[in-house]
Amino acid sequence: MSGTQKGLQFIKQVVEASVKTRCFESVLNKVKVITGGNGQCVCEMIVTEDDQNRGGTLHGGMTATLVDAVSTWALLTSDKQVAGVSVDMGISYMKAAKVGEEILIDAKTLRVGNRLAFLTVDITRKADGTLLAQGKHTKFIGS
Amino acid sequence: MSGTQKGLQFIKQVVEASVKTRCFESVLNKVKVITGGNGQCVCEMIVTEDDQNRGGTLHGGMTATLVDAVSTWALLTSDKQVAGVSVDMGISYMKAAKVGEEILIDAKTLRVGNRLAFLTVDITRKADGTLLAQGKHTKFIGS
Amino acid sequence: MSGTQKGLQFIKQVVEASVKTRCFESVLNKVKVITGGNGQCVCEMIVTEDDQNRGGTLHGGMTATLVDAVSTWALLTSDKQVAGVSVDMGISYMKAAKVGEEILIDAKTLRVGNRLAFLTVDITRKADGTLLAQGKHTKFIGS
Amino acid sequence: MSGTQKGLQFIKQVVEASVKTRCFESVLNKVKVITGGNGQCVCEMIVTEDDQNRGGTLHGGMTATLVDAVSTWALLTSDKQVAGVSVDMGISYMKAAKVGEEILIDAKTLRVGNRLAFLTVDITRKADGTLLAQGKHTKFIGS
Repeated sequence: MSGTQKGLQFIKQVVEASVKTRCFESVLNKVKVITGGNGQCVCEMIVTEDDQNRGGTLHGGMTATLVDAVSTWALLTSDKQVAGVSVDMGISYMKAAKVGEEILIDAKTLRVGNRLAFLTVDITRKADGTLLAQGKHTKFIGS
Repeated sequence: MSGTQKGLQFIKQVVEASVKTRCFESVLNKVKVITGGNGQCVCEMIVTEDDQNRGGTLHGGMTATLVDAVSTWALLTSDKQVAGVSVDMGISYMKAAKVGEEILIDAKTLRVGNRLAFLTVDITRKADGTLLAQGKHTKFIGS
Repeated sequence: MSGTQKGLQFIKQVVEASVKTRCFESVLNKVKVITGGNGQCVCEMIVTEDDQNRGGTLHGGMTATLVDAVSTWALLTSDKQVAGVSVDMGISYMKAAKVGEEILIDAKTLRVGNRLAFLTVDITRKADGTLLAQGKHTKFIGS
Repeated sequence: MSGTQKGLQFIKQVVEASVKTRCFESVLNKVKVITGGNGQCVCEMIVTEDDQNRGGTLHGGMTATLVDAVSTWALLTSDKQVAGVSVDMGISYMKAAKVGEEILIDAKTLRVGNRLAFLTVDITRKADGTLLAQGKHTKFIGS
């Protein structure tokens, strides 16, 4: 099995364990991991009514939760294999995702130092690649 | 009824309607509105296992959802009475909130212009006032 | 001399040394420290043509430099007396400051932990207290 | 002349006019535009003592000024050809740039809507491509 396939298996197990436990990440139970490894993780999901705001589009809190979780899964597959603790997270909301649309959540590690890790996440509409939101996540990974 | 009491009644109805609909804000069904009006909204909530991450503390995605929702409720009570659309949201995570702890979510409107509104949210531990997280939220309110 | 007065003297010396050295903070040579101590620092400045953008108002890069520097001076007066290293900085621009206007830059320390410090900065128009910009600054202070 | 060459000529004139006027962007007088057009702009610069902080590395305020200015130049070359007004700016500082090092500032437009534009900026060490800082910039471009 290649390194990337191992990364993918590992992260699928992490996600499965997460969403099945009684915890906030059970809101991510529809998220499917597509690729994972070397500090990157790509997931996909169809937006449902459970994820919507009053306007019938993906709720900004769910977008933020996707940024938080998928970037953490990406970090788990980097050399250090740590989850870290959130320091700062930021999300720019560019375009709404409607209920029924399929979205891709693509997280990658920009830098892992001794103490801090920096990650970025693109959320795009799967049908045409339109960028819907971009998030950044800084985590403390030291002790 | 004073202006602030009217604001409080109004925002309680908004929140009740939100969390009862099939939507992402049903994750906020334990949130209780304490005060609301004049662009401000204060809520409280006990952190439960439904809100936790793997470390047994409030999940960063739930923190972000609180920042998003409570600041929007605050904005609804400002003069313009609009919800707006998210542009940028940022959260600084300072200290973890453990399961069982009671937290306050205090959102206020910093500025409402013709097109944009700027809000800030302090999340504190109710027992001793320790600041746990601070969020900012920029919304587009124009047409 | 009271603790706050000592803090003020100390931070005035830091600033004077900074702006006189050949370094980027020489752009802050008009900034006057008003109060300092206990993790807080307040400065004032009149916006001049040297600080302007093409629109004749305070340049966003100068606003960011004020957020960076004054929050660092505030942190120097906290118990740990460290400058730290920038991790994340964010600025919300709410209203322009015109050339000739006097502004206040009020930085305070929200939290100092073992590794990280969190600061916030309000920039207001001195004449009427209008909030012009708000910045946040996360610094690494560990070793 | 191709569209990109026209974009490059145009942005070089904008920058030359900016840094020669009495304004804050005169701190950018060493910045050289490499490419520009279609909503993107790449510049390079050698870090000098004028740009340094007390630690002898690029000052965070200068980094922020580069993010602000180069992203605005990128936006000027997009279809709408507007400069816009800053709404939110964020910078993640990953690694220091020492005096004497040459850096690249690569800004691109993520999305231009009717009212808002979203830009991202990578600052890298030219010698080896190491990512030093990443900025995001949201601008209001409506009327």
